[in-house]
Amino acid sequence: MFRIDEHTVLPLARGCSILGAGGGGDTEIGVLASRQAIEGFGPVEVRPLEELPPQGLIMPGGSIGAPIVGLEKIERGDECVAIREWVEQLRGEPVIAVMASEIGGSNGLVPIAWAARMGLPVVDADGMGRAFPEVQQITMEIAGISASPAVMADERGNVIVFHAADGPWMERLERAATIEFGGTAMASDYLLTVEQAMTATVPGTVSLAIEIGRTIGEAEDDPVGAVSRSIDAARLIDGKIVDVDRRIESGFNRGSCTIEGLGAHAGSELRIDIQNENLIAVLDDRIVATVPDIITVCDAETGEAIHTERLRYGQRVSVIAFPCASIWRTPEGLAIAGPRVFGYEIEYTPVERLHA
Amino acid sequence: MFRIDEHTVLPLARGCSILGAGGGGDTEIGVLASRQAIEGFGPVEVRPLEELPPQGLIMPGGSIGAPIVGLEKIERGDECVAIREWVEQLRGEPVIAVMASEIGGSNGLVPIAWAARMGLPVVDADGMGRAFPEVQQITMEIAGISASPAVMADERGNVIVFHAADGPWMERLERAATIEFGGTAMASDYLLTVEQAMTATVPGTVSLAIEIGRTIGEAEDDPVGAVSRSIDAARLIDGKIVDVDRRIESGFNRGSCTIEGLGAHAGSELRIDIQNENLIAVLDDRIVATVPDIITVCDAETGEAIHTERLRYGQRVSVIAFPCASIWRTPEGLAIAGPRVFGYEIEYTPVERLHA
Repeated sequence: MFRIDEHTVLPLARGCSILGAGGGGDTEIGVLASRQAIEGFGPVEVRPLEELPPQGLIMPGGSIGAPIVGLEKIERGDECVAIREWVEQLRGEPVIAVMASEIGGSNGLVPIAWAARMGLPVVDADGMGRAFPEVQQITMEIAGISASPAVMADERGNVIVFHAADGPWMERLERAATIEFGGTAMASDYLLTVEQAMTATVPGTVSLAIEIGRTIGEAEDDPVGAVSRSIDAARLIDGKIVDVDRRIESGFNRGSCTIEGLGAHAGSELRIDIQNENLIAVLDDRIVATVPDIITVCDAETGEAIHTERLRYGQRVSVIAFPCASIWRTPEGLAIAGPRVFGYEIEYTPVERLHA
Repeated sequence: MFRIDEHTVLPLARGCSILGAGGGGDTEIGVLASRQAIEGFGPVEVRPLEELPPQGLIMPGGSIGAPIVGLEKIERGDECVAIREWVEQLRGEPVIAVMASEIGGSNGLVPIAWAARMGLPVVDADGMGRAFPEVQQITMEIAGISASPAVMADERGNVIVFHAADGPWMERLERAATIEFGGTAMASDYLLTVEQAMTATVPGTVSLAIEIGRTIGEAEDDPVGAVSRSIDAARLIDGKIVDVDRRIESGFNRGSCTIEGLGAHAGSELRIDIQNENLIAVLDDRIVATVPDIITVCDAETGEAIHTERLRYGQRVSVIAFPCASIWRTPEGLAIAGPRVFGYEIEYTPVERLHA
């Protein structure tokens, strides 16, 4: 067990952004919300699964929607209380811990604010090891855990409970409600026990995010290099953003981003396709990384990840790519979050083999 | 108390269609579903509110969506069982009777099939005395009864529970889910006790519908005239449909219908605007009836109502208009379902005054 206090929030946020593959939501508001919650309710305990009772109920959660909307449409803070009440009523048992559905981006911070406010520990694990755009792209889906019942709440006091026919239907129903809510909402789905979480989540990702964030914060020069070494990331390009095409479509951010190489990379061009997250990176017509591996655009100077909704012309960036959690590389994982799921008629090749 | 058996279904359906103002869904499938349910599970008891225990829980219900979709997207039949289970769990008490949310169109028949299948009585009342396009356009909203919790189910096994901030939010959230379900779904909202229903519903509408239906069936000639006399309806025009503009938009049928007068009405033209229901009737540029009063297009020969999704060029029709339930003529009623709510910048004038 360790604690997240106001000083741990920033390194955690930096790490979540790197793991987010550009998605999961900008962490700026998440940092403020987490710090405020910790200030008001005290530090948050982070517990490995082994320290929790096997039959205890974990409430995964996070924000759903288009991250660009989340920059301006801010939660009220107590949505989690309504969600927890409904979860406990529906399951007939108390929630003993919260967990990030996805560690990536602001969604890695959401459970910190929730845990502080509700006096619950946070599990040192998540359901992706990164961020993904769709609800059913989560390790619990691979493990056969039901997405239902899911509970969604917005800042106006609306609460919806979904009992969906399957994971993809949960995605459709939650997405439709999210759009109606104005683009973002808070949700909990894939409720699970500690015992189930042992094999159905990516363990250690809260610790990992903090470690990555500290590496960035403590690097004396070239923080991108420091991070890349620490997580075995390939450095795809150093350069300048020369084009960003971005729109909100069906409740997602979609588009692409083009980076022109500078220095040692002069003459090269990297294009990244986006659906909330960075999906695929193409360097001079050669695929150099694809989902489910993690492609992250970093500020060349600070090393901090730039979320897809913050990309803009002229930014100096370094793009890195590194291996996803191994569960995503299984046939079952690729069936849910491989390149074909996103419309790319290609076989998945692990990023480290593309750069061997 | 009286019973609805397989012989009562057709007169009930005919009456519901007349009361439906063109909406509430085509009754053809509703007749088949009700007869099948009665055949399988026995006749349905219809009870006036006075015969039920005051604290008993009534489950209002019906189909939501674009009626034109309902012609081809057919329910499974046991959606009501899932809805009831959730309602009873959420309220912590048994449902003692079902009720039509709206008596108009197929939605007047839905509770008959539900009641047969579940072995429950149907209340001789409904929440509109007609059909309206939106969820919150219901007498229970005027009475201050909460729309929440609402339960919606589709034929695939999806169930959604809504706890909305208010009635209009319930409309938005149910509509968004309905669209995602493919255009129609089954729902129960505005749960209420028998005691609440005494002042929060339109009483006697099941009996009234059956009476209207029998009048049509038993008329020796001019069934439209017979019905008009029995319900004090004004006969707006006898003529031929010369134009139908109809589309599915935001989960509703929208459009308009133009009727050219024949016989005594030759030289006149009536235009009706539609949002699921017939909203306003304009005869040669003069408004002759508006929502919330009931405008119904009838087949000139059989007297049966033609739902908005069945209107087509060349049909010989008689259009009638008659008073809505008096609750809709109060300031509170007009605020929810008056002409201004549908975008018409006019004062409401009762149909009988327009034809005095």
